[in-house]
Amino acid sequence: MSQSRWTGVVTCRTLDLRARFGAAFTELAPEITLLTPDEVTDPAAVDFVLSWVPPKDAFSPYPNLRGIFSIAAGMDAILACPSLPKNVPVIRVEDPDQAAQMAGFAAFHIVWHHRQMGLHLENQAKGVWKRPASGRSPARVRVGVMGFGLMGRAVALGARALGYPVATLSRNLPPKPEAGMAHFTDAHRAAFLARTDILINVLPMTPATKGLFDIDLFAALPVGAAFIHLGRGAQLDESALLSALETGQISGASLDVFAPEPLVAEHPFWSHPKVFVTPHTASEAEPPAVVANVVKHLSAIG
Amino acid sequence: MSQSRWTGVVTCRTLDLRARFGAAFTELAPEITLLTPDEVTDPAAVDFVLSWVPPKDAFSPYPNLRGIFSIAAGMDAILACPSLPKNVPVIRVEDPDQAAQMAGFAAFHIVWHHRQMGLHLENQAKGVWKRPASGRSPARVRVGVMGFGLMGRAVALGARALGYPVATLSRNLPPKPEAGMAHFTDAHRAAFLARTDILINVLPMTPATKGLFDIDLFAALPVGAAFIHLGRGAQLDESALLSALETGQISGASLDVFAPEPLVAEHPFWSHPKVFVTPHTASEAEPPAVVANVVKHLSAIG
Repeated sequence: MSQSRWTGVVTCRTLDLRARFGAAFTELAPEITLLTPDEVTDPAAVDFVLSWVPPKDAFSPYPNLRGIFSIAAGMDAILACPSLPKNVPVIRVEDPDQAAQMAGFAAFHIVWHHRQMGLHLENQAKGVWKRPASGRSPARVRVGVMGFGLMGRAVALGARALGYPVATLSRNLPPKPEAGMAHFTDAHRAAFLARTDILINVLPMTPATKGLFDIDLFAALPVGAAFIHLGRGAQLDESALLSALETGQISGASLDVFAPEPLVAEHPFWSHPKVFVTPHTASEAEPPAVVANVVKHLSAIG
Repeated sequence: MSQSRWTGVVTCRTLDLRARFGAAFTELAPEITLLTPDEVTDPAAVDFVLSWVPPKDAFSPYPNLRGIFSIAAGMDAILACPSLPKNVPVIRVEDPDQAAQMAGFAAFHIVWHHRQMGLHLENQAKGVWKRPASGRSPARVRVGVMGFGLMGRAVALGARALGYPVATLSRNLPPKPEAGMAHFTDAHRAAFLARTDILINVLPMTPATKGLFDIDLFAALPVGAAFIHLGRGAQLDESALLSALETGQISGASLDVFAPEPLVAEHPFWSHPKVFVTPHTASEAEPPAVVANVVKHLSAIG
């Protein structure tokens, strides 16, 4: 056995991180010992925590942490944890592959709404052959992406590659604008929404984005717009969406994130004919990428 | 009224081409008179035919045709028509927008199979929250595209943009190979199939491609491969596909084309749990593109 150089603890209220990442650490980084909290005998020897939704006291036992790693792009639960130490860096695993997963997932739902693929499934179930008269061209279906970080950029580039006119919305204009793409800042949100037929949310959870998708925002979209929700559950005013679906202001929605998760039984989204529910599965860092990120940052720390 | 410069006839056994294209010709090319066969009073004055699946005697009445236009990429029905004159050019409408439609449609079905989106719909219907343990990365799902014309190239580029490793198969190597894409010729079909997890067919209908998708071809794919069929119905040996789905050699199929169309009632594809049936709707030339192509070619002819 190689000697352990670093010791880490996995802790998450919603996912079994050891089951997911343990084997990859053993194989790719034998210099790291990965423990569950109850296996720790010397808390002072723990160098890092790997988490996503930490318990309240997740970080308290470990006085010598040098890094806290989030397995996912969304770090809101870690940042809101009461026991989060102030002087320890919180590091988000950055995984281009995860962004590619997100791009494919978003592309699927863009086409799902644009090409009415759900209607095709219904027709198939009834044995009905019915061709749409028109509307196949992506050139007249305007995609809008809210958020332009690693995820938003990948989603926007994927949609553009499939021929959709794409605009993005972010706090600041990107340092490097993308060709053939319109970039809006928050100051011009109304104009962004007014030109968006399919809206995709990949914003991070912050105080500013909590409840952002409300009745006013949906009303600012063209009638019949579709909504693809890949950010965080608490960003959505659920009753506003249900109401907008009822009036037809929103023609359909794809929801991958909820508050709380799992989506509660008997929630109207489960059986809503215009809603496609997925279990927060759009993207997830692959174990080798997580291991590589942890090793890279620990090595840099020394 | 502007004077008529050219006269065309629409004729198709399966689609009402005047309903689809008449208004666009009136608006965009008033110099063209577009008639149905029964409206023609002077057959000698007909300059062109616009068709897709012509009746047997579609071309016989018109002695002075200068062009026969296919509204779609697949010209097999026109080329097989007994009354097709030998000395009149058959012109395929080339529409980059149509290729973009195809790329989005193919991307949807790639993700449908890769990410098991049908299973997510089933889980939603049951109110079940179930996250896949792994397998989200496109990087390990190898897409193979058979056909590398206008359609195949767009499909391959779309899949590549979403992070899938892509290979193509065509009679000859493309004059301009695409970066990050493997191009195979028919001589290396076995190698192409052996590395293909999701196979997409966009080949034209020719004697060489009739019945091409048979039990041997499916057996040459890795176990559990998916099949996306966007070419022509007669290219598929239906019982071979049903058998490969039964054994699990093929894990799922998306079928947009059939022989004959519409897909007959009571066909096992309609209710097959592993088959996604769509009504030959992947792509269709938009009316303005058809008008522009016709005008361009007629102008060139003089």
